[in-house]
Amino acid sequence: MSQSHLAFSQLERNAVYRAIAERRDMRHFIAAPIDPLILQRLFQAAWQAPSVGLMQPWRMIRITDHKLRRAIHTLVEAERIETAKALGEREAEFLQLKVEGIKDCAEVIVMSLMDKRESHIFGRRTLPEMDLASVACAIQNMWLAARAEGLGMGWVSLFDPLQLAELLAIPQGACPVAILCLGHIAAYYQQPMLEQENWRQRQPLEELIFENRWQAPNSP
Amino acid sequence: MSQSHLAFSQLERNAVYRAIAERRDMRHFIAAPIDPLILQRLFQAAWQAPSVGLMQPWRMIRITDHKLRRAIHTLVEAERIETAKALGEREAEFLQLKVEGIKDCAEVIVMSLMDKRESHIFGRRTLPEMDLASVACAIQNMWLAARAEGLGMGWVSLFDPLQLAELLAIPQGACPVAILCLGHIAAYYQQPMLEQENWRQRQPLEELIFENRWQAPNSP
Repeated sequence: MSQSHLAFSQLERNAVYRAIAERRDMRHFIAAPIDPLILQRLFQAAWQAPSVGLMQPWRMIRITDHKLRRAIHTLVEAERIETAKALGEREAEFLQLKVEGIKDCAEVIVMSLMDKRESHIFGRRTLPEMDLASVACAIQNMWLAARAEGLGMGWVSLFDPLQLAELLAIPQGACPVAILCLGHIAAYYQQPMLEQENWRQRQPLEELIFENRWQAPNSP
Repeated sequence: MSQSHLAFSQLERNAVYRAIAERRDMRHFIAAPIDPLILQRLFQAAWQAPSVGLMQPWRMIRITDHKLRRAIHTLVEAERIETAKALGEREAEFLQLKVEGIKDCAEVIVMSLMDKRESHIFGRRTLPEMDLASVACAIQNMWLAARAEGLGMGWVSLFDPLQLAELLAIPQGACPVAILCLGHIAAYYQQPMLEQENWRQRQPLEELIFENRWQAPNSP
């Protein structure tokens, strides 16, 4: 079982694994603009993601209008309160968490599913939601590229998609799925922030891998 | 606009961008087993993905039973025929494409959403499908790690999720979303295979980026 002749060098492999290991969902940013060339590389990384049937369902809306950014923040803040209520006994604890950095980050990018997706059947006849999976792959590419560039990125999904769609003139059939906060940071969280803040601990990997059939927790 | 002090070295950055650029959705494999240590690194890469509210919704089922692998192939083949019919005038063209490498690849891994997801509200009150987004991020991590290791990976979504769930005893509430084919390959496609085969051409990046609001194609 030798290594593939197509494998990266040890140093290159380590770099890829380092980006994967050190990427964090960031909510704390410092004020400093992003070099436009770096931003372009992150967009390019998104574009190089796989997409089901090569449909490229992702649309990226860069928010440069400060009034619009404030309006987006207002939408997120409203949903933060709704989520807190829905969490019941953990409401107060949730409200202590910093869940977004929309006001502080250098760039806000809204990722949206495109409209007119019905015509794309390849890989979606039984699983139409594969378009969202493609958008998520693009975002993960951006996240890893941002880590390599020393930038932080956060994926905010605390919003009403219909209200956000209205705000950005996103047409019917399309759907915003992420508010991405991108910017310079002082440091990466050592662990996922929700783990550091004791919101939740991660399950170990071995509990998430089964063989040949589903295994209930603690089943033989 | 200086570079972040947290940025990787130029060589490391290049390696991350190389993995992003050269990753392909592979359907052609060569017979050779995968080193268990490498397989473990790919699982670990999946596990290091972000997940909404740290819910870790992914469950990975490694298929080692050859009878089961054949049964999975039969399910996919049935859906391939259904998809071809649904494509109408492109039916014959679609049937010419190689859409999966289930019989030839070294490892088949079924990725599934976990059951009992209703209790996870953080980041999902208005967008419950964020769990699928988290699974897709994990798969993208595996894809990039596989590229670094010189291995090929393909994401097959041509299957009936209910039938696949039944085959693998996946409980109600959980849902398989990917049959991952993983293995050694002779070479990576230079371009996405669907582009090479003239199934579809990619839209350029600049058409997918808008500013502040949605822009219709060719709108000012």
